[in-house]
Parts: sequence; C-alpha cells; structure tokens
Amino acid sequence: MSKSDHSGAVLTIDLNGIVANWLLLKSMLADAECAAVIKADAYGLGAERVAPALARAGCETFFVAQVDEGVAVRRVAPAATIHVLGGPVPGSEETLIDHQLVPVLNSLGDIEAWGDLAHVRGAPLPADLHIDTGMARLGLPPDETAILIREPERLDGIEVATVMSHLACADEADHPLNRQQLADFLRARHKFSHLKASFANSSGIFLGPEYHFDLARPGVSLYGVGPRPGETNPMAQVVRLQGKILQVRDVDRPQTVGYGASHRVARRGRVATVGVGYADGYLRSLSNSGCGYMGDIRVPIVGRVSMDLITLDVSDVADDAARPGAPVDLIGPHNPVDSVAAEAGTIGHEILTGLGSRYHRVYLDGAD
Amino acid sequence: MSKSDHSGAVLTIDLNGIVANWLLLKSMLADAECAAVIKADAYGLGAERVAPALARAGCETFFVAQVDEGVAVRRVAPAATIHVLGGPVPGSEETLIDHQLVPVLNSLGDIEAWGDLAHVRGAPLPADLHIDTGMARLGLPPDETAILIREPERLDGIEVATVMSHLACADEADHPLNRQQLADFLRARHKFSHLKASFANSSGIFLGPEYHFDLARPGVSLYGVGPRPGETNPMAQVVRLQGKILQVRDVDRPQTVGYGASHRVARRGRVATVGVGYADGYLRSLSNSGCGYMGDIRVPIVGRVSMDLITLDVSDVADDAARPGAPVDLIGPHNPVDSVAAEAGTIGHEILTGLGSRYHRVYLDGAD
Repeated sequence: MSKSDHSGAVLTIDLNGIVANWLLLKSMLADAECAAVIKADAYGLGAERVAPALARAGCETFFVAQVDEGVAVRRVAPAATIHVLGGPVPGSEETLIDHQLVPVLNSLGDIEAWGDLAHVRGAPLPADLHIDTGMARLGLPPDETAILIREPERLDGIEVATVMSHLACADEADHPLNRQQLADFLRARHKFSHLKASFANSSGIFLGPEYHFDLARPGVSLYGVGPRPGETNPMAQVVRLQGKILQVRDVDRPQTVGYGASHRVARRGRVATVGVGYADGYLRSLSNSGCGYMGDIRVPIVGRVSMDLITLDVSDVADDAARPGAPVDLIGPHNPVDSVAAEAGTIGHEILTGLGSRYHRVYLDGAD
Repeated sequence: MSKSDHSGAVLTIDLNGIVANWLLLKSMLADAECAAVIKADAYGLGAERVAPALARAGCETFFVAQVDEGVAVRRVAPAATIHVLGGPVPGSEETLIDHQLVPVLNSLGDIEAWGDLAHVRGAPLPADLHIDTGMARLGLPPDETAILIREPERLDGIEVATVMSHLACADEADHPLNRQQLADFLRARHKFSHLKASFANSSGIFLGPEYHFDLARPGVSLYGVGPRPGETNPMAQVVRLQGKILQVRDVDRPQTVGYGASHRVARRGRVATVGVGYADGYLRSLSNSGCGYMGDIRVPIVGRVSMDLITLDVSDVADDAARPGAPVDLIGPHNPVDSVAAEAGTIGHEILTGLGSRYHRVYLDGAD
C-alpha cells in the first residue's frame, strides 16, 4: 500500500520542468558554463533526484552549502564537480578530500588552513576563492582581498578553480549595488585573471552578459521562482502540492473557526479541513490570508493554520466536488510558489525549502 | 568522525526535561490519566526518542495526527495505546488495524465506514469519538452529534474508547469560548456517560479540574512552550540550538549587510556569519528582528535571514570569543522557544516543528 493513501497531501515534483528551466538559463549564457545550485536538498525538492536529472541533461557542476550535502550529492553524481559554499569547516577536511568536494575559501584563515593541509599532504588541493563585494556574509572582505593581492604566495599549494562573488540585490535590476558589486568584482578579478570567474545567481543571469563571466550559478529559478519579482515569470512551475480534504462541514453565524476564534463566519457556507499544517512547512503566516484552488475556484484559508490542519471556505464549490478525499491545490497552476510566498509575507525560496517530510512525493521524470 | 563536525548547528534535546514536564502536568491531574501528544514527530523533536522516554516514565497513551506517524510510534512503543487524530482516511484501514492504532472518528461518515468494516470483519473495532464544540475543524458538528444521540446504534460494532473535544482558546484563560465549549462538551458527554472523556490540551490543564475529565492530552508544553502566554512559564526548557560561527568580519559605514541591503551598518563593528538559515526552519521573519546569545551577551540578527546563513552583530563580544567555530545560542537559556517565536511573529509550536534536518542532534536522557 502506497504512503499516498495515508498522507495528508501529495507533492508532485516535475524533474522535466527543472531540466527545462536549467536549459533555458543555459541558453542565455552564450559561452559561460551553467552550473546548478542544489543546496538545502535542492531547495527542498530532493537533491538525490534533482542532481542525476540535471547531470543527464549535461550539467557538470553543482553547488551545495554544507559538507554533508556534498557527500549526499556525490553518491548520485559520481562524475560531477561539487563545490561547497560553506567552506572547509574544521573537522570536515578529510571528508571533503575523500569525496572530491571543492570547498569555497571564504577568508584568509580558510586559505591558510587549506594551504597548510596541502603542504602536509604534499599534494595540491582544489578550492574556490570567494571575494565579498557587498553581502558582508561570507567571502574575503576588502582588507583581506588586498592582502591576498599583495601576497599571492598565500595560495601556494591550492589549485584555485574559480574566483567568485555573490550579488545582494540581483532581483532588483536597477539597484545601484549591482553595478557597484560588478565594478568591485572586476577589479579583484583582474588580479586573478588566470582563474575562471563566477558571479551570477539566477537573477544575476537576467542582469545581462557582463554579469555572466565563466560560470553562472542559478538556484531558485531552476525550481520555478521568478528571477524578477513583479515581472512575467519565464520559468516553468515544477511543484504541485495537493492537500486532501478530510472533512466538510456547514457553518453559519455566529460561529468561529479554529484557534483563537480568529475567523468569524459571515454567512451560511461550508468549510473543508485539509490535512496539511505548519508542521508541513505550510507557514502559519498564511492564516486567514492564503488560499487553495479546487479546479478554477479559489478556496480561501479561513482561521489560523494549525500544526497538522488547515480550514478552507469551499462555499463556492459544488457539494459533490468538495467532499472527503478530494484534492485541493495548495501550490498549483493558479497559485504558484511565488503567489503562496506573497500571501505568506515571504519569498518562494522559503516556501520551497519548508516543504515538509510528511507529504507523499511523486517525481515526474524523463522515464515517465 | 561525527556529523557535528560538519553541520552548521547542534540541536540538543533534553529528554529528561520532557519527562519532567510530563510529570509536572500529570501531577496537576488528580485522577485523570495524562497522555502525551507526539504528532508532527513529537513537535519536531523526534517521536522515536520522545515516545520511549515518556513510556519509561509511565506514559501509556499517545496521540499522533496521521496514520504513518502512528506506525512509526508503534515501532518504539509496542505496549502503548496510540490514537490517530486525523482518523481512518480511506486506504489506511488495514494499516490502522495491523498496528493496533485507534482512529479518532470525526464524522458520521467516519463512523459508518468504520462500523461497516467491523461488520465485514465480524469483530468489533476500537475508535474514539470526536465531538466538535467550537473549532469547526475536525469532529462531529452539532447536527451530526444530534443524529448520533438519536441513533446510537450507528456505533454498533465500534468499541468507543474515548469521547473527546478540542479547545480553541485554552491559552486565553478568560476567553468566553472556553466555558461555552465546556458546557457543550458536558451536554454531549452526558449522552455518552459510559465512555471515558478527554478535553484538555496543554493549556486546558491549566484551566482547572473541571476541564480534566478522564484523559488529558498535553502536547506543546511537554516541549517547553508556556501554557499561558504572558505569564511565568512553569515548563522546563528542553531545546537548545547552538549555531557555529563560520566567519567574523569588521564592518563600517556606509556598508550594508545581506540580501536586499536591508541592514545599513550604523557604526564600526563586527558581524559574525553562522551556518543556519530558513532552510533549517530558522524563519525568515526573524530578519533584522531575531537574536542570538554568546554567553550572556545579546547578538542581534542584522540583515535578512538567508537560506543557509544568518549574520549577527557581535560588536559587544570580545574578539577572542567571537571567532570561527564558536557557538551562538539561537535557542537557549536567554532566548527560549517562546521568545524566538515572538520575535518571528509566531508561536513556539511553529519554531519547534520547523527545526531542520541538517542540525546535528544530541539527545540527553536518563542513560547519560
């Protein structure tokens, strides 16, 4: 018996759509290589399924955030180049080397430790070099970059694959920080002109060719999130989340619905309960603001999202359609990830990475 | 090599504290039995560790939300009574029976299907009966309850263990809905006086003995969330989340930090980057509002929470303390779950159930 018979919702992930999105982004890049960012378990969609699908389509380079993620991807992408953005955290060095993972060096301290290890081993070690140009999060700050430019011998023993930086405001095409970061990156990169350069994330690709350099690193747009908020989204939607109705009830004034009695019924109607809640990553901030769809009919969330359940106003749906077992699109054609995110007061990235472990997951791929 | 060497944070879960909280709640109950709600993987803390710890302390009855959760608990609590709040969803019946799980019947439809199954099998089947008194979420609505009272033969073949209802506003002691729900439950229960009755959740226990009936069902307060928001919390804290610093940098005006350049540095200081983000359930709504602690020193989140990383102002911490590898309490003695939830604009329940899968988890239990 399939788990889908018991779970509160079915999460369908379209691997073909992810591949199509990667090919679209790649087609924008002319000569630059197109990598894929699959950190956070491929933004919640399952790196162990996403990485092989992209590798079959020709993707040779992946980025993850943490060493353990790199180990998991190595199992399913034996020939890929895998970069670890979080760098060589102390204690992880042997794991990095054993699994042929390329750490991103984010500081002079990282460079010194990685170079020392290469020296001890008597063989060069691969790595990337991350120059911070405006995130103030990871990467060499300007003073450390200046020291490294003056003292390039600090990189002895390290085979630097790529020099990279990361955009803070790429999703706002007119933000002045974009050009400022570009200028700073060009200046630093000039000192490391023998290395490959990598700058653009998903939105960065849409800023134009001067942002592409040698290697682009799209992430969230592979998974359907629009690279330019407020503009038409060119990416295919790859996620559908269908909750199942557990129960339908008639309601009428002066009844209230859910915790805190936060929704007061305004008129006679029907409320459906679906077995999805914030423990499944369906954010509590969707209380009284999110919606589902049954076919083309919008069914708004009424009352608070609770841990395992939501309640929806299905008064506009025919009685014989809104019945126990019927599916409700919580993410779907009419309410894609970005819409759900807007209703929750966040971004699509957080909706994706929050997708819960209780869903029955169905993957659509080329073999289907 | 332990995963803790690679992960961005260590999550310590105090099973002794959970047991102490259960014993405290049990001590308030006089003659009523004290169950434990361990749905949503014991509120994110790991049902496979929590259930056996509570069982060893004498807890004989557990509640879960979904059938699959019941199956997982049965593996680690072979002698327990396990109730499934979501009821016998179509297709799960054999699984319920095979694992001796007791479904909560939430509608006349559930009752009919479960009774029919008992008839086909030629043997009675256990279940609970959920009367809705004001949540409008799951449970028999008033019209169905009235029908069942008139036609009790609808329960033929079903061994009803417990008649139950659920409070909507138990955390607001003075909310008028509490007494209204109590009156409605007493009225319905009078018709099923031969059955055990269950009404109180964690906060409901604190409403007083008339809410206790035969079986209380505390959940979130087992895990440290205060039963009465705004009042002193009598529960032990059982969760500590310690992120690890990846990098520290000097910052100064007119620099900005993070995505969207949402934090403008006001004065010369230092920012630490920690390997925890919203993909770990550290909610994005904590951007520019949450905080960590290093020892007794508050270190506020600056900039947006990103997927795998946060940035904290550590200017007030000594240079040799705020260094790569040093731990930062993201949930701890100075910022317990309820405080983090308030900063995120939500409730402790959502912080707990969101606790991510990338953390290195350490369990403290009686054996330690």
